Amino acid sequence: MKRYEVLADEIAQSIREGLLRTGDRLPSVRQASTHRRVSPSTVFQAYYLLEARGLVRSRERSGYYVAAQAAPLPPEPETASQPSGESTRVDVSELVFEVLQSAMARDMVPLGSAFPSPLLFPLPRLARAMASSVQKLDPWASVDDLTPGNARLRRQIALRYLLDGVHVPADEIVVTNGAMEALNLCLLAVTRPGDAVLVESPCFYAVLQALERNHLKAIEVPTHPREGIDLPALAQAIERHAPKACWLMTNFQNPLGSSMDDDKKRALVELLGRHEIPLIEDDVYGELYFGNTRPGSAKRFDSKGLVLHCASFSKCLAPGYRVGWAAPGRYAREVARHKLTTTLTTSAPAQEALATYLERGGYERHLRRLRQALATQQAGFLEAMARHFPAGCRITRPGGGYFVWVELPAQVDALALHRQALARGISVAPGPIFSAHRGFRNCLRLNYGHAQDERTEQALATLSQLIAQAAA
Amino acid sequence: MKRYEVLADEIAQSIREGLLRTGDRLPSVRQASTHRRVSPSTVFQAYYLLEARGLVRSRERSGYYVAAQAAPLPPEPETASQPSGESTRVDVSELVFEVLQSAMARDMVPLGSAFPSPLLFPLPRLARAMASSVQKLDPWASVDDLTPGNARLRRQIALRYLLDGVHVPADEIVVTNGAMEALNLCLLAVTRPGDAVLVESPCFYAVLQALERNHLKAIEVPTHPREGIDLPALAQAIERHAPKACWLMTNFQNPLGSSMDDDKKRALVELLGRHEIPLIEDDVYGELYFGNTRPGSAKRFDSKGLVLHCASFSKCLAPGYRVGWAAPGRYAREVARHKLTTTLTTSAPAQEALATYLERGGYERHLRRLRQALATQQAGFLEAMARHFPAGCRITRPGGGYFVWVELPAQVDALALHRQALARGISVAPGPIFSAHRGFRNCLRLNYGHAQDERTEQALATLSQLIAQAAA
Repeated sequence: MKRYEVLADEIAQSIREGLLRTGDRLPSVRQASTHRRVSPSTVFQAYYLLEARGLVRSRERSGYYVAAQAAPLPPEPETASQPSGESTRVDVSELVFEVLQSAMARDMVPLGSAFPSPLLFPLPRLARAMASSVQKLDPWASVDDLTPGNARLRRQIALRYLLDGVHVPADEIVVTNGAMEALNLCLLAVTRPGDAVLVESPCFYAVLQALERNHLKAIEVPTHPREGIDLPALAQAIERHAPKACWLMTNFQNPLGSSMDDDKKRALVELLGRHEIPLIEDDVYGELYFGNTRPGSAKRFDSKGLVLHCASFSKCLAPGYRVGWAAPGRYAREVARHKLTTTLTTSAPAQEALATYLERGGYERHLRRLRQALATQQAGFLEAMARHFPAGCRITRPGGGYFVWVELPAQVDALALHRQALARGISVAPGPIFSAHRGFRNCLRLNYGHAQDERTEQALATLSQLIAQAAA
Repeated sequence: MKRYEVLADEIAQSIREGLLRTGDRLPSVRQASTHRRVSPSTVFQAYYLLEARGLVRSRERSGYYVAAQAAPLPPEPETASQPSGESTRVDVSELVFEVLQSAMARDMVPLGSAFPSPLLFPLPRLARAMASSVQKLDPWASVDDLTPGNARLRRQIALRYLLDGVHVPADEIVVTNGAMEALNLCLLAVTRPGDAVLVESPCFYAVLQALERNHLKAIEVPTHPREGIDLPALAQAIERHAPKACWLMTNFQNPLGSSMDDDKKRALVELLGRHEIPLIEDDVYGELYFGNTRPGSAKRFDSKGLVLHCASFSKCLAPGYRVGWAAPGRYAREVARHKLTTTLTTSAPAQEALATYLERGGYERHLRRLRQALATQQAGFLEAMARHFPAGCRITRPGGGYFVWVELPAQVDALALHRQALARGISVAPGPIFSAHRGFRNCLRLNYGHAQDERTEQALATLSQLIAQAAA
């Protein structure tokens, strides 16, 4: 932990314990700096972080004050999921489509949305990069940039891997129509119909749909809401089912928000490597961390070429451009070929625009602002939930991304709640869409990636009433 | 036939029969108009068409002269293919990839290319449409335009269907990453692993790759090089194999260049309809006709919603943008869902740019120029082949598109020829990549979609020498 984080945590604890109360003024930066023997900028950073967490408010020219805290945050979920251990033929699509469809209207409060607000992205700068690159577009680019994709963009992606301490040659990278296509192509490359695939429980519904479409069986593995997939359970499932692949999210998992630490990632890669099982690593949220450094990928620990790492720009830079990629290790050739025969190549203008944007610099600055915005929104969202939600709810506090996972009292039916909320103009993502066996009946995934206003507050209040009624 | 076409054909016949010889001056427009009792503009159109076909040349201020004709054109292939009639497990990809890979270098003479020259397209106007639309892009478009795609673009596509006399509601249209994705999604919507699918013989290799990837069986149906698939043979194959789908190209088929006339298209739709077999109609070359009107689609005759019509802008407007679509009839919902779970949606800036371009008008003008250019290139290409190719070759003369199909003397091995040509900097597409059973060993598909210059002439001469050697 950095010095300013230590300071911020100490102050946060004082607030939680009631030593500092709503309206209390924090020491001035100069006072705190002298008293704590840290630099003024460390104090500034700590206060800024506390503000982002919603714990303090600044008043112009008068300093920082403890914000109205309302209730303490609801507890976090503590137990890992307990799927049956059997392999499951997947049949979840109908339910998922129903939920997705209902959540798409623009006038819904989008708590069930899978996307952050598009207003968080540097669309004007991207547009300028697009306008300038498309006017300079080499007519022959449409031929040269056939699978595996634009050479400049692949170089930029390889450079970002290098920043994160992973050496991925640009040649290994296949540019795709978003991470979704990358993941699907990787799955095609390592499985055949009838194979069993290890997945998290709960997991992103698109995983289940892909297994369903490819006639694969899901082995759902117990997963902890904070720490991710359970490795001993994974080892057992490997022995029992001889799976052909493992597909999971290492950072800020959708829907839980769980992340594996480095030791766990290393152990995961070693375990799968011993059995020569390829790992499809979905890392689309990795850039959206609230801490100091990007959480690493499992691919960093891969010496056998068994990790197929997939990510995209859709969640962190350019929604709608549909540019993602796979770094598929030893499967790079197969993945490129499947790309060639399914969608040929990725839209050239979008690739050019992103390459130009990345070359011009400013991506890091954008990411810092984005992470800050999401961290602030999470703090505000959790605080609002603390104010409204009835006792008996548990809520995760992920270190990144834009989802929280809510365990409701056992008697609440999330599908019924979804329909009731919908009738009141609020979308939620009910637990059963994240499981092949339609488990997690009393769970919700909620999205805090949109600016919070009166409407959000009102929606959370309404949702809480519905939950309280259902629990009564 | 229009009046000017009749006139042009008469003159062409006079040239072929030697009544008019190289260097002869055609009658002046006024003379011909008086003599033939047609308007001067009819004469102009006829001369223009003859010029496009490479039969006459205009000299400034001095009129039209018969061009150097060299040899008469080689004969056309006359017999339909004769595949085995058995269903075939497909295993062609390795060969196709080898051929595609080798043809990609920019310094190859691209006779084996699958694409026309990118210089044929209005890239600057597209770039302006892109620049202006991306700067006005509604941030929420990335959410609203999720599958099935941009509403403005779908409206423009529906309007073009209407122009061609087909009523396709905009709601039926699913925008995809090129026609290739559209075709793949349609295939997913109507088949399951193990099913049999009717295809042409020869057929586009991507069809075979898609069947291979989806663990489907190919039923190759005899196909005539001018008239397309053989309907009685198709009827037999239906009785024998109970196929779950038929996938073919109705206009300027790849690789043959064959087209079905309207009667045949109607009979095809009726035959398949009687057996409730969905037709995946690949119509990506339909806009590239050299006659007076767009050849119709089979979908026009479909009253049961069984025709899944697929097309794109890649071959006629915007290569590299990767925007195509499916109009999947009664399968629209399934196709949209498969799109949603494989690549989610199509690049928003590319969709916006095309919608803007189409709304601004000028597409028809571009298409007229493009068709004219391709017709002229075909005439020059056939003439050059006539000059160089040894006796015993048969060559198709398609009414559109940018491919000819060449039957070489029986003893010539097209795969060997492909390797020899490659060593001399020339790519060709050998027959065996267009068949699940690697037939068509003595056939080639050649691309005339690139500007013809000294290099093309030299390449055709070299190719001819190689053929003559192999045939000797």
